[in-house]
Parts: sequence; C-alpha cells; structure tokens
Amino acid sequence: MLIANAVLADGTTRHIDVERGRIAALLPAEADVPARDDVLDVAGALLLPPLVDGHIHLDKTLLGLPWIANQSAGNRVADRIEAERRVRAARTVPEAETGSNLVRQVMASGTLHMRSHVDIDNQLGLGNLHEVLKIRERFRDLVTIQIVAFPQSGILRSPGTAELLDAAIAEGADLVGGLDPVGIDGDLDGHLDAIFTIAGRRDVGVDIHLHDGGEGGITQLLAIAARATTAGLQGRTTVSHAFALGSVDADTAARTADVLAKAGIAIMSHGPGGAPIPPLSLLHRHGVRVFGGSDNIRDAWSPFGNGDMLERATMIAYRANFRHDHELQFAFDMVTGAAAHVLGIEDYGIAIGAAADFVAVDAGSVAEAVATRPRRKLVIKGGKIVARDGVLAV
Amino acid sequence: MLIANAVLADGTTRHIDVERGRIAALLPAEADVPARDDVLDVAGALLLPPLVDGHIHLDKTLLGLPWIANQSAGNRVADRIEAERRVRAARTVPEAETGSNLVRQVMASGTLHMRSHVDIDNQLGLGNLHEVLKIRERFRDLVTIQIVAFPQSGILRSPGTAELLDAAIAEGADLVGGLDPVGIDGDLDGHLDAIFTIAGRRDVGVDIHLHDGGEGGITQLLAIAARATTAGLQGRTTVSHAFALGSVDADTAARTADVLAKAGIAIMSHGPGGAPIPPLSLLHRHGVRVFGGSDNIRDAWSPFGNGDMLERATMIAYRANFRHDHELQFAFDMVTGAAAHVLGIEDYGIAIGAAADFVAVDAGSVAEAVATRPRRKLVIKGGKIVARDGVLAV
Repeated sequence: MLIANAVLADGTTRHIDVERGRIAALLPAEADVPARDDVLDVAGALLLPPLVDGHIHLDKTLLGLPWIANQSAGNRVADRIEAERRVRAARTVPEAETGSNLVRQVMASGTLHMRSHVDIDNQLGLGNLHEVLKIRERFRDLVTIQIVAFPQSGILRSPGTAELLDAAIAEGADLVGGLDPVGIDGDLDGHLDAIFTIAGRRDVGVDIHLHDGGEGGITQLLAIAARATTAGLQGRTTVSHAFALGSVDADTAARTADVLAKAGIAIMSHGPGGAPIPPLSLLHRHGVRVFGGSDNIRDAWSPFGNGDMLERATMIAYRANFRHDHELQFAFDMVTGAAAHVLGIEDYGIAIGAAADFVAVDAGSVAEAVATRPRRKLVIKGGKIVARDGVLAV
Repeated sequence: MLIANAVLADGTTRHIDVERGRIAALLPAEADVPARDDVLDVAGALLLPPLVDGHIHLDKTLLGLPWIANQSAGNRVADRIEAERRVRAARTVPEAETGSNLVRQVMASGTLHMRSHVDIDNQLGLGNLHEVLKIRERFRDLVTIQIVAFPQSGILRSPGTAELLDAAIAEGADLVGGLDPVGIDGDLDGHLDAIFTIAGRRDVGVDIHLHDGGEGGITQLLAIAARATTAGLQGRTTVSHAFALGSVDADTAARTADVLAKAGIAIMSHGPGGAPIPPLSLLHRHGVRVFGGSDNIRDAWSPFGNGDMLERATMIAYRANFRHDHELQFAFDMVTGAAAHVLGIEDYGIAIGAAADFVAVDAGSVAEAVATRPRRKLVIKGGKIVARDGVLAV
C-alpha cells in the first residue's frame, strides 16, 4: 500500500510507503506517486497515529443494551459501587458481548490500543477477567488490550481479593490495580502492601484509581511514589484520576508533581466533569507524564461516554481551559503518544519502521482536529483499512 | 401533514395532525393512520420540541473560515477582549456570512430559537448589529433570533457605548446587555445605571454577562436583583454565566438564589469547562429559572463549540455531575422549555395549538438522548421538514 498526499501533524505532505504492515518510507510531496494499483490517495487529509485509550472499563459497559437508568443512591464512590453491584446482578448479557460492542465502536473511531481495568472482588471472582480475556482474544489481530486487575470493591474490605488479584496476573492480566487506599479500604499501608507485594512477585506494573481529594489524596500520592521507588517500579506506575492534584493550591500541586516525576509516576485524566481536573500543564512542566482515557462509558457509573478518544481530547482540553493551539496539541498527545508510551506500545507513531497504523481526518491541523472532532475518514491497521467514515470495515 | 408513530417525551406514542403550521390534534397510538398522501411515519422515533439556544454570539463566530489560532495573551476576560479586537481587525469576511453559516449549522441540529448577543462598543459602533439584523432578516421564516445589545468592551471604559446601546434598541435589538460591572468597568452602580436607564426608557429586558467570581460576583448579583425589582423587570432579567454562584459555599449560593428567585432573575449556563458551574439543581430548588446556551463557537474566545444544543445539554449535565434520568431531563429542559420561556417564545412545545416545530431522534427517552446525542433524523418547522439526518433541507 502507498498512502498518497497525506498531511502529517507537522504540516508536511508525504506519500507513505507501507510494506508488510510497517512504514517503509516517507516520501516527499514532490515525489511522483507511482502507478501502482495499491495507491490510496487521501487527498490532503490529516494523517494521525492511532488513538490510545489509557483507561477504559470493557467489563462495565452496557453498550448495546436497552437504556438502564443510573441507580446510585448518592454521589460517593461507595454509593456507585453498591449501585453497580445491583446492576451487575441483573445482567443477562455476558460482559464479553457488551465489551465487544465497545471495542468495535472505539476501533471505528480510531482507537487501536487500550488499557482496560477489569473488576475483581470476592463476589465476582475472576469472572469478568475471563470475559475480557475472551474479548482480547477475539480482537487480537486488531487492537492491543492491556488488562489491569482492578479491586473495584477494595482489597481489605473484600477479603480474598488480594489472592484473586494475584491469580488474575497468573491468568493473563498485565498490571495490578488499586482503589482509594484510604477512602475505600481505610488503610493506606495495608492497601499498598497488598498491591506492591503482588507487583513485586509477578514483576508487573501498577495502576491505582485515586478519587480521594484534598490533602488526604496528596498523602496517598506521596505514599504511592515512595512505594514505586522502593519497588523499582518507576516508569511502570500510574495513578488514575488523581483529583487531589486539582483540589489543592498550586504550590502543593507543584511540590507533589516534583515527587511524582522523580518516582516516574504517570497520571491519567479523562477530563472529569464533576470533579476537579489535575493541573495538566503544571504536571507536564514538572516532568510528570500525563495521558488520557475514557473511563466509564454508558455503564452503572455514568450515562455518558462513547469511547471516541479524539472527543476525549476535546473534553480534556475544555476542562483544562486549553484554547491555544499548543495546548490542543498537548491534549492530543495525551490520547496518542503519551498514552502509547505509558502502555509500552512498541513501534508506535508515524516514522520509518513503525507499524502502519493511522487515522485520517479532514482537518487542517491537530489543533483543529481536537477542536472540531471530525468523523474518522479512515482507520488503518498494519496497512489495512479497518474503518471508513466512522463505520467498521472488518 | 400527519406525523405518525411519534414517541413523545412522556413515553406515549401519538399521531400528530398538523394544520396550517400548528398542532391540530394529538391522536392516540390506537387511532388508525388515515390513508393520506401527507403522512410522515417516524416509526417510533422520539419527537421532541425544537432546541433553543439561550446565549449565542452570531457576530463573533469564525465558522466557515480557515482555522484561526487563539491569540489571547492570558486567561483574563480582558485578555480575550484584546485578542478579539486584533482578530476582528483582520477579518475580511462580513459577520453576516459567518453568522449565517452558524445559523444553518444550528438549524440542522434542531435549534429554531436563539438569543444572540451582539458586540457594541465605540470601535465597532453598530456595525455588528447591522450584520446580525441581516442574518435575522435572511432567516426570518425559519428561526427566531432575539438580539441583545452587548457592551463587549464595557460601558464606562468605552465612552459613547451607552448611547450606542440605546441606539441599538431603536434599530431593532430586543434587550440591553451588560458585562462584569466591577471586573470590566470597575463601577457597579455606574454600569447598572446605564443599563437599567436604557431598559426603562425603551421598555426592554436585560441580559448581563457576569464572569466575576466569589463574593464580589455575589455582590453584583444582589445589586442586579435589586435593580430589576426597582425597575419592574422581574421575569425579564437574565444573568449569563454567574460563575460566582459556583465559587461560593452552598449556604451563600442558597441565600443568593432566594434573592434571585424573588427578583425573577434567570440564570444562563453553558456548562463552562474552565470556570465553576453554578449549582443548577440548588438554583432550581430555590425557584430560580436556569437555562442553557452555546456561548462562544469557534471564535476568538474559544476554539470549541458547534451550536448543537442537545450536545450542550450533555455538556451541562456532565459538568453538573448529573447522572440520573431526572437530572438528564432537567438538562434537556434547560435547552428547550426553560430557554423558550425566558425568550418568551409563544406557542412553544408539543401541545394542541402550538407551532408544529419538532426534532426527531432515535432514542428511547429524553435521558438517553441527552446521554448519547444522536444525529437529528428530522427537524420540522411549521409542519415542513427543514433538515434531515443532520443536513439542511431548505
């Protein structure tokens, strides 16, 4: 395949020669387009690397089912956990089916790599993990699905969960997760002991949900940084949400950012609507890698979301009060390069030797694409078209 | 025209008989659909009243022009005013053209009524007003455009503006606007004197932009309430944005809400991304009418926005942390019934005798429509189809 007349993020026009699923050459616009029958002329469309979802819950979504109203009795994380238990108990369609609906939808919007948290507790056991492993197998040639063993009901307050998390890694999960060590388990050291023991034993990374805000949340962030350093897990530890960083003064956020940067802790934000957003630019200036994810998509937690990571970049930018082009580009990096780096995706990006994975849109620049969220004209995986005009082609 | 098999917001299925542009009958689902050649079978689509944009800036948008990067030097309102002056000076396409682009786009998404603020200052004079009056005339049979004479550069700091605002009303503007009496003009009484003098002389309503936050913003809200009461403008006065209500404690917000309710002050929110959102549910409980608007759409202020008021309801709901069906319905009311009430749209809604204006979508309920923002299958004005599948048909 030769992709002709593609405009890249740097504004240059290139013809891209693809061989055996990889980028073999980036020819200048002046080069003649050879008369081959495998030329795909994108006619000046903006060609971007594939979108990366750094935080999705493939087992939670109810996508494809009739509307299910939110049943949470209150606005606390604990209320939503209870509501989800009720919704889950009433489910009749397996998570592998609804999760597959979601994978198809996000592929059509250009996402080819994702990190999915998977609920594990002493009610569910490893049932949801097995469902998501089915999804991963089903789409193995099309998308990367990294799995976090996620203790949605806590670890200490759901006895047996630590053992289940450990077993989940043995069965194929890639990282061990955590959840509000203080807010849910009420035991910072106990919660982190459990997580980092498993991570050390299994040699896997860590990704902890932290909704707890204010100084209490900051204390937990600092403790996670210390643990990651001791465990040698710098660069392999993520804190998702980290609302606390958006709910303290800038000095405290900056001091915390320095500690996080030194410990190699990445921060995931989905651009929360009803909670404080971490100060993304400040974190970046202090050397912390920030990246994006969808979080809940039409599930017992949230009625919103559709898995479109370009729209997610828009939302992140809107919430972060980004308006300038360099800020919109930064939001785009959060859902592409930065997320790919955190997920450890090899051969990512538009460069010779990288995988021939692309998303084509009608936009004059990355900034304009983030502001306007145009329909995806083409999604290409390994040199093959997998979606066209927002509709899956495989 | 007879619209057959429409599901209404209350869940009932009806056949709607339209005569001379009005709803003549709402027939039960059991009624036989007559064999007429003007039957439009919407086959169970959700039929909603038209969307209403309570706050748009038709003269500011750059829609249809090549991408223009944001040029604001800082994040203050004053910085953005300066940046806009530069962008404006470089414009070559008249505001009537870009504004018409926007009207066409919002009509295709189902908006048939809007309140547009129009910049007036001693640099612009009434130039932008004349452009928006052209737009209003051009689309007079299709959309309602209410015009607010808006002192974007302040009143006292832009000498001559008060006289221009007065002249604007004489030339066809419907309301007099204002802007941060303290934050921009530095003179609460002077600013409000100017506005309410014009409103009294011309017998028009008032709609004041208030970005000023905290206790200072609350002081201004209370002063506006007092002025509206004295002037007999209860029910005809709006404060747009009112970020202050979202930046003070709940007790202060509640006390202020009581004053606003008594003075008949409506509050417009677009679901701000980078500023505090007013506590919409609290305001509603205290009797304050809250409604929605787009605010900036791809202009010198913001790269975001597309004028889709169903998506705006989603954004408002997301920012307000709404998740339950009744909350999503409330967000929908903000962009339909509540906004129509504030704009004084007569014969609005789906009832016998009302205008035969509708938006049809594929969704099982209003809550689902707000969460999923489906494409508009049909937009109908006075019994005639004006857009189909998101594309204008007139």
